[in-house]
Amino acid sequence: MATQRIMDFLATRRPEGPCLVVDLDVVHDNYQAFRKAMPNSRVFYAVKANPAPEILRLLVSLGSSFDTASVAEIEMALDAGATPDRISYGNTIKKERDVARAYELGIRLYAVDCIEEVEKIARVAPGSQVFCRVLTDGAGAEWPLSRKFGCVPAMAVDVLRHANLLGLDAYGVSFHVGSQQTDLSAWDRALSDARMVFGKLAAEGINLRMVNMGGGFPTRYLRDVPTAQAYGEAIFDALSKHFGNRMPETIIEPGRGMVGNAGVIKSEVVLISRKSDNDEARWVYLDIGKFGGLAETMDEAIRYPLVTPRDGDEKAPCVIAGPTCDSADVLYEKNLYPLPISLTIGDEVLIEGTGAYTTTYSAVAFNGFEPLKAYVI
Amino acid sequence: MATQRIMDFLATRRPEGPCLVVDLDVVHDNYQAFRKAMPNSRVFYAVKANPAPEILRLLVSLGSSFDTASVAEIEMALDAGATPDRISYGNTIKKERDVARAYELGIRLYAVDCIEEVEKIARVAPGSQVFCRVLTDGAGAEWPLSRKFGCVPAMAVDVLRHANLLGLDAYGVSFHVGSQQTDLSAWDRALSDARMVFGKLAAEGINLRMVNMGGGFPTRYLRDVPTAQAYGEAIFDALSKHFGNRMPETIIEPGRGMVGNAGVIKSEVVLISRKSDNDEARWVYLDIGKFGGLAETMDEAIRYPLVTPRDGDEKAPCVIAGPTCDSADVLYEKNLYPLPISLTIGDEVLIEGTGAYTTTYSAVAFNGFEPLKAYVI
Repeated sequence: MATQRIMDFLATRRPEGPCLVVDLDVVHDNYQAFRKAMPNSRVFYAVKANPAPEILRLLVSLGSSFDTASVAEIEMALDAGATPDRISYGNTIKKERDVARAYELGIRLYAVDCIEEVEKIARVAPGSQVFCRVLTDGAGAEWPLSRKFGCVPAMAVDVLRHANLLGLDAYGVSFHVGSQQTDLSAWDRALSDARMVFGKLAAEGINLRMVNMGGGFPTRYLRDVPTAQAYGEAIFDALSKHFGNRMPETIIEPGRGMVGNAGVIKSEVVLISRKSDNDEARWVYLDIGKFGGLAETMDEAIRYPLVTPRDGDEKAPCVIAGPTCDSADVLYEKNLYPLPISLTIGDEVLIEGTGAYTTTYSAVAFNGFEPLKAYVI
Repeated sequence: MATQRIMDFLATRRPEGPCLVVDLDVVHDNYQAFRKAMPNSRVFYAVKANPAPEILRLLVSLGSSFDTASVAEIEMALDAGATPDRISYGNTIKKERDVARAYELGIRLYAVDCIEEVEKIARVAPGSQVFCRVLTDGAGAEWPLSRKFGCVPAMAVDVLRHANLLGLDAYGVSFHVGSQQTDLSAWDRALSDARMVFGKLAAEGINLRMVNMGGGFPTRYLRDVPTAQAYGEAIFDALSKHFGNRMPETIIEPGRGMVGNAGVIKSEVVLISRKSDNDEARWVYLDIGKFGGLAETMDEAIRYPLVTPRDGDEKAPCVIAGPTCDSADVLYEKNLYPLPISLTIGDEVLIEGTGAYTTTYSAVAFNGFEPLKAYVI
């Protein structure tokens, strides 16, 4: 996944220290693949995955809309040229004064998952469209979503009824099947819940019109994942099954699926050692770790492909750790990572599939290390 | 632990958004308590715990030395007025060019835990003092240190012998009993290992002179912890037991113990909700979470005391989560946290004991949220 353009950039520019390089051509191709796979869905790029201005500007030019998590992200999308009607405030947890600020900026589409949030929006963003997030089980996802966002479908009915009562536009339902979701049937289960909410409210004369199917589209790390086309077909089938010929508008919110495979982190081997003479695994310390941008290795959830200049040589299992004085800054230890026995201090290691959820996760100055640098080419 | 000075600052300044306030008087008292409890040990403050310039300048004026994790931290200590002889480069994972830069800056004291690191230092920091970190089991610590740093004691003998062979000053041994260590016997076990390394090398004519006892001194969160005085006595007893009347020089490296209880984070309740009508626990969402500075809630390791304006009222268990669109941004869920039933959206929540390992852990811009602000008063 290190494209020729990325390899050329690294070879020519030789940036010092760990850095992320993102190839905009890959983002471009990913966007087109989503459009082709789901031609009837509006694409709201999840800005949090990677808010680099170059990425936002490209996606504006391609016609994308934007899912944002904060006022700062709304401002980034606006700065990149998106009009307010192409921006949703998709975080279910918002301060009322932030909703007010978003409304001032022209935002009219908000996520909610409880009565309390509906009341904030009714007070300071009157008449806006709201969609209610429904809990899903997240089975099949590599980075599951727990119960932090959403409510059970029965409560979503109450929430949207309340929105309608307060003069808001009860627009639809959203769900998120869990990040890096590779089980295509996950969308089927969630759409069945969505249909139930539509049905209950229709019986009361409240006609929802939109299903926001969230993100969860995976990027390829070490294992192959279904293509955007396969997702598109599975989702279309599930929509047809549950909504028949009364198809709702649909929104998708790819983040990782849009930029994950577009980026590569260049790092360096700082140290290779053993803890005792009879230690089975070598410890390989890189100049980037959990606090430098690789937060998603938490619990070894995401296993990034590593490319070294000696990959043809025989390999043996290693612990891989970051450079900070923090014992939690270990990337892979429970599942050892095979790396060439010939690997040497100073070797460059490319960490692939790191275009999403790296730069912004990076700690501001932990151990004095500066945040991850990024080059978007 | 929110001192009157901190309460007055918050009441007068009313800073917007989440922020840390550190009371320098508490840092001052903590330093004096360490000096008093361990009058024969040099104090090297672990800069990574909180590198605020005001804290470093205060500790310089009090006579402290500094344990640093990177060239950037060395520069911070120098900028605060510390002379190079009061600074150790305590990270066992260093790029050779960073060692060279530290040597240029005058640093002559380095941590190592393997032959490879000794060779780097011999090449670019000739003649420097090195101490070898020995693995400890970390039992009794709330934030254990795993095996990332250090080597077994038998290997430490090889490492220090090699340092001596390459013309470095084989100065001593270090260990770290694990952060927030409340088992006083942990130091006894580690000092026994240290004595073994001293003995083996003495038999070869290499006389180590220093034991660096690291950090691990706890700060008070919800449970009482032993006092600095109790630590001092336990450590002195263990030193006497193992080294008799040939006492080595000693170093301690408090970080959390120096600044943890000096800081309070002011946050705000963004949302309180339930996921279903029959949900037992409320979800309380604060405007700061795991990515805004509270990284040490990972696996619910550290349970911070929370103070609300309604603490006299009846309490019921809550899940506590941060404000980002990340399902991992949940602080306490496995062990629910009791909070007043009357707690309301917009209430201020003080998170105590947050002077250490918060500001620098904070993500640079995750979800568009800015890093944790800090005021040192």
